[in-house]
Amino acid sequence: MADNGISRRRLLGTAGATGLALGAGGGAVGYAAASSGSGSSSDGSKAALASLGTDEVMFHGKHQPGITTPTQARGHLVAFDLTAGAGRKEAAALLRRWSGTAARLMAGEPVEGDDTSVARDAGPSSLTVTFGFGASFFGRTGLAKQRPDALDPLPHFSSDRLDKARSNGDLWVQIGANDALVAFHALRAIQRDAAGAARVRWQMNGFNRSPGATAHPMTTRNLMGQVDGTNNPKPSDKDFDERVFVPADGDPAWMADGSYVVVRRIRMLLDDWEKLGRKDQEAVIGRHKSDGSPLTGGTETTEPQLEKTGADGTLVIPVNAHARISRPDQNGGAAMLRRPFSYHDGFDGKGDPDAGLLFVCWQADPVRGFVPVQRKLDRGDALSEFVRHESSGLFAVPGGAAKGEYVGQRLLEG
Amino acid sequence: MADNGISRRRLLGTAGATGLALGAGGGAVGYAAASSGSGSSSDGSKAALASLGTDEVMFHGKHQPGITTPTQARGHLVAFDLTAGAGRKEAAALLRRWSGTAARLMAGEPVEGDDTSVARDAGPSSLTVTFGFGASFFGRTGLAKQRPDALDPLPHFSSDRLDKARSNGDLWVQIGANDALVAFHALRAIQRDAAGAARVRWQMNGFNRSPGATAHPMTTRNLMGQVDGTNNPKPSDKDFDERVFVPADGDPAWMADGSYVVVRRIRMLLDDWEKLGRKDQEAVIGRHKSDGSPLTGGTETTEPQLEKTGADGTLVIPVNAHARISRPDQNGGAAMLRRPFSYHDGFDGKGDPDAGLLFVCWQADPVRGFVPVQRKLDRGDALSEFVRHESSGLFAVPGGAAKGEYVGQRLLEG
Repeated sequence: MADNGISRRRLLGTAGATGLALGAGGGAVGYAAASSGSGSSSDGSKAALASLGTDEVMFHGKHQPGITTPTQARGHLVAFDLTAGAGRKEAAALLRRWSGTAARLMAGEPVEGDDTSVARDAGPSSLTVTFGFGASFFGRTGLAKQRPDALDPLPHFSSDRLDKARSNGDLWVQIGANDALVAFHALRAIQRDAAGAARVRWQMNGFNRSPGATAHPMTTRNLMGQVDGTNNPKPSDKDFDERVFVPADGDPAWMADGSYVVVRRIRMLLDDWEKLGRKDQEAVIGRHKSDGSPLTGGTETTEPQLEKTGADGTLVIPVNAHARISRPDQNGGAAMLRRPFSYHDGFDGKGDPDAGLLFVCWQADPVRGFVPVQRKLDRGDALSEFVRHESSGLFAVPGGAAKGEYVGQRLLEG
Repeated sequence: MADNGISRRRLLGTAGATGLALGAGGGAVGYAAASSGSGSSSDGSKAALASLGTDEVMFHGKHQPGITTPTQARGHLVAFDLTAGAGRKEAAALLRRWSGTAARLMAGEPVEGDDTSVARDAGPSSLTVTFGFGASFFGRTGLAKQRPDALDPLPHFSSDRLDKARSNGDLWVQIGANDALVAFHALRAIQRDAAGAARVRWQMNGFNRSPGATAHPMTTRNLMGQVDGTNNPKPSDKDFDERVFVPADGDPAWMADGSYVVVRRIRMLLDDWEKLGRKDQEAVIGRHKSDGSPLTGGTETTEPQLEKTGADGTLVIPVNAHARISRPDQNGGAAMLRRPFSYHDGFDGKGDPDAGLLFVCWQADPVRGFVPVQRKLDRGDALSEFVRHESSGLFAVPGGAAKGEYVGQRLLEG
């Protein structure tokens, strides 16, 4: 087994929770894949087959975890508002507590004090915990001068049906893990740490493919059945860091190596969508459903031939196809790193599923990333009649904490 | 690797979706374990390490799948009511469609017609689909004479706070899989099959440990952090079949080799529970939180010493401890097979989690299984102030379908 980089100890599943650190340490392992759990990743590097529990992502580093980490099977998004009376001091103490908890849990250790034991026995299971600040955070903590311009409100889009109670928030936390109990345990620990300083504003649960569910790692599918994420920038791209992360000498200085995240709860009108049938769905998207290849042929990664016409003289990839409208080269080179979870919260009274995408995208600057893409989609995307944006958030996610530091320290003690 | 019963082809994750059939074919593999994904199961048999996707459970057989199948990482429970005008004929056609869909999906094949592709690329991932009939089904289909006495309403318990809209139903379907997209795909296919004949009455989502999250298979934990399921009967027990399944010559005849399932949405008051602290929690349960061992010592499977007293003369395992009250030998030998999912549907307005257990238990006769245990718990269980039963269902789950047969055929065409 040596050629696959896996020790027998790992294969036999006897490695403890503090086993080898794999996954997102380098950001390049299995990044484009839905799964880090089986086979080798699409960029040719080696990934672990088993045991899912022992995979560990590093908390400390240049960037926060959960941005280039392969998407996990289970995710929680949660926003908090500072409680009345809590200001900069309480926020600093909270971020210090949260960072300590995140570092411990991501290493597979219990929280300090009375751990609930919900994650006991399981390894870290690729747990990541990521922290961000919303626009409202800065006024409440007397840090208005430190508020990045990039947190200016997103423009209104015509497909927006936003629920304010489930939008924005002072603080945002993203939790992901390949085990649902590990993820829930982290969510509760983060909530407990917040007691007295912040309270939950909204919280959403999501999921992705489990590692090992596919025979080889591949781009994941969404609940419309589409291969989703083909055009994502790859860490091996020359300008990947530039597109996703604020530069080390960026402005404001406390956001060095950070990123901005746009979070949208995008409900899919699945009953309408499924009535369309495969052929019509493919025209809406501009790609084949089977493998994500463009309607003009090839494989998932083949460039679409946007000008190609069929026997009847019409464009093979329709003028309003999602794949055409959302192409980076149609948007002045804008690019964002999409890292979504699917969600499904049951059915409403009519039997329609409350399901769709917890769209999470990362960029160095939302005005060059999410905004121009969404503006184009808003005007002419055939997909828009099948989706409804139900909530929205925009958060500044600072760079990773060095050892001994907590996330946001450069802001809160700057 | 031969000694572990795993082919290299499987380990490398290159086996296709129609790979080896593992899992619950015999009901005895890894049954007691939270995971079929790593190491060997607690009864000493061999289980697969990877790849999670290729694990396949047989649809056809003596019993329906999803009863002795190891619990999967993701579960959906859904109840349907027949639409006005739908009777025995429509119900028979529906069960025929459902059985065909379940057999195909559990084998990793798409549904007939226009598959949504949501599960495409993934293997069956231990998908199971299980069908049951509620008491109200029989009158609506002119089959009142075939209604088993075992479907008589459950007694009222003092901790019941039942929501009728989320209780009972004409038909019940349980879906489980180790991949959330595979499970969702099956749920939608089952819902589509029902169109015109039945509509969703209620639907709930659940989860368990992911295969491979623990270093070796073990009894799973619930969201209170307790090892949960220690006293479950084991397929190797002499009287396992007798306790769980209706005998082949049972009454009514169409229930031969079937089972009765009690489904309860049990909300856990986690904020109250977690305020207790570990020591007090252990007194409520009567077991150590760390490993599930009785407070009187030993390991998880050690018999508790119920009469043992401490230095102060009081019982080590308190008189109202959950482990004492729920013991089968306290209930005339009653036994049920508990096979629950945890659930978490976000937080309510006060920040309290809407979370707990989708309690699913299987028995040959509810009057000898669930009812006497719950009656005892209702009277004197220290745990009851930390849980609230929010919904309840009781369903007759017929035996498995033979090839060419559909589930419930012996009832609907009997």
